[in-house]
Amino acid sequence: MDRKKEREEASFEAGIKLGALFHQFIGTPVSEENADILERAMESCMKLQPFVIDSEVTINRDKLRRAISEFGYTSLSGELLSAKVRVKVGKEEITAVLQWDDEKKYPLMRLVD
Amino acid sequence: MDRKKEREEASFEAGIKLGALFHQFIGTPVSEENADILERAMESCMKLQPFVIDSEVTINRDKLRRAISEFGYTSLSGELLSAKVRVKVGKEEITAVLQWDDEKKYPLMRLVD
Amino acid sequence: MDRKKEREEASFEAGIKLGALFHQFIGTPVSEENADILERAMESCMKLQPFVIDSEVTINRDKLRRAISEFGYTSLSGELLSAKVRVKVGKEEITAVLQWDDEKKYPLMRLVD
Amino acid sequence: MDRKKEREEASFEAGIKLGALFHQFIGTPVSEENADILERAMESCMKLQPFVIDSEVTINRDKLRRAISEFGYTSLSGELLSAKVRVKVGKEEITAVLQWDDEKKYPLMRLVD
Repeated sequence: MDRKKEREEASFEAGIKLGALFHQFIGTPVSEENADILERAMESCMKLQPFVIDSEVTINRDKLRRAISEFGYTSLSGELLSAKVRVKVGKEEITAVLQWDDEKKYPLMRLVD
Repeated sequence: MDRKKEREEASFEAGIKLGALFHQFIGTPVSEENADILERAMESCMKLQPFVIDSEVTINRDKLRRAISEFGYTSLSGELLSAKVRVKVGKEEITAVLQWDDEKKYPLMRLVD
Repeated sequence: MDRKKEREEASFEAGIKLGALFHQFIGTPVSEENADILERAMESCMKLQPFVIDSEVTINRDKLRRAISEFGYTSLSGELLSAKVRVKVGKEEITAVLQWDDEKKYPLMRLVD
Repeated sequence: MDRKKEREEASFEAGIKLGALFHQFIGTPVSEENADILERAMESCMKLQPFVIDSEVTINRDKLRRAISEFGYTSLSGELLSAKVRVKVGKEEITAVLQWDDEKKYPLMRLVD
């Protein structure tokens, strides 16, 4: 596979991982009590997948505190979640991130250099 | 099974259906364009399940419009979703509802008479 | 609330928790490497929810090994998952379980004594 | 943006859509009764997302019939699901597919020409 094709494949794989993360875990019950273990569990799920060489998932604690319901927890939402994934296909490495964009009201996913 | 046991089983089954609905579909991409078909699809999923005799799912269109991102849609959230399910076990019928509670900041599920 | 009503409410709440667990986490990437942390994360999510006094989630390791794909993991499915949840409403405690039923080909949820 | 960068972005976006589809909808209750509406609902969700110009989702009816439980339906699994998505970024169009691979026991996602 040539380098150009490898970069396309790596971009594709990075997209799969972020789309998967968001749509698998949005809705999950979360509070400050289990935010750590959820972050680690989500990272572990990304790392199992093909071509992933590193992953980082963060639940924003400030926003989490503000979102807590009367019952002491909330459902994980796009506002609270950010992630970074690094994939490698052949010789090409690509990093992609998920981050809430307040202006766009959107969990933006993008390739980064 | 006696009537008392039947009511407990029916309550249990109603709970399963609302918990399932919420956690299956929260996060789904939604706009005014596909809100109808999503409502029908969600109802169809509830109606397949054991003991369900009726179901109704509604996506709040006012809140939906306000939640729309710069990209013309949003992710289905607890704020937008309400549902009613009717289950029957033996001779006992039970109705349960899911409805966002603004004060509690919570997608409240409860048995109704 | 009288005891009869409390038992119905407890049954309802137990149903919510098992329906939620199944439909939130089915599809999650899992292997022997992250089965432990996933079990703990799923339990933590159940324990956050109202009225839950205990929860236990198990991923069947034998079935997991047999389900592993060429890429070294699989998607969490009903065949692999079992759970127990204990809820208390007022003075009434109820236990419910989720367990795959091979004959019925179904992730059976039921109240237990 | 140059054409090379556009192809990478398009590949990334295609990956997001397939990862999202799989992890949002796996677990959904499905039978022959609601397979049609589920397919349309899933396609509608893909079409809402940025850069998508076409999408097609198919639930394999033969496999569906064989997976049906004693209760007349099953949970949507990777074995049953296939999809195609076409995205366009700038001047570059990319098609990607999701298809179960029996040998690999895996819901393979790949870029196609």
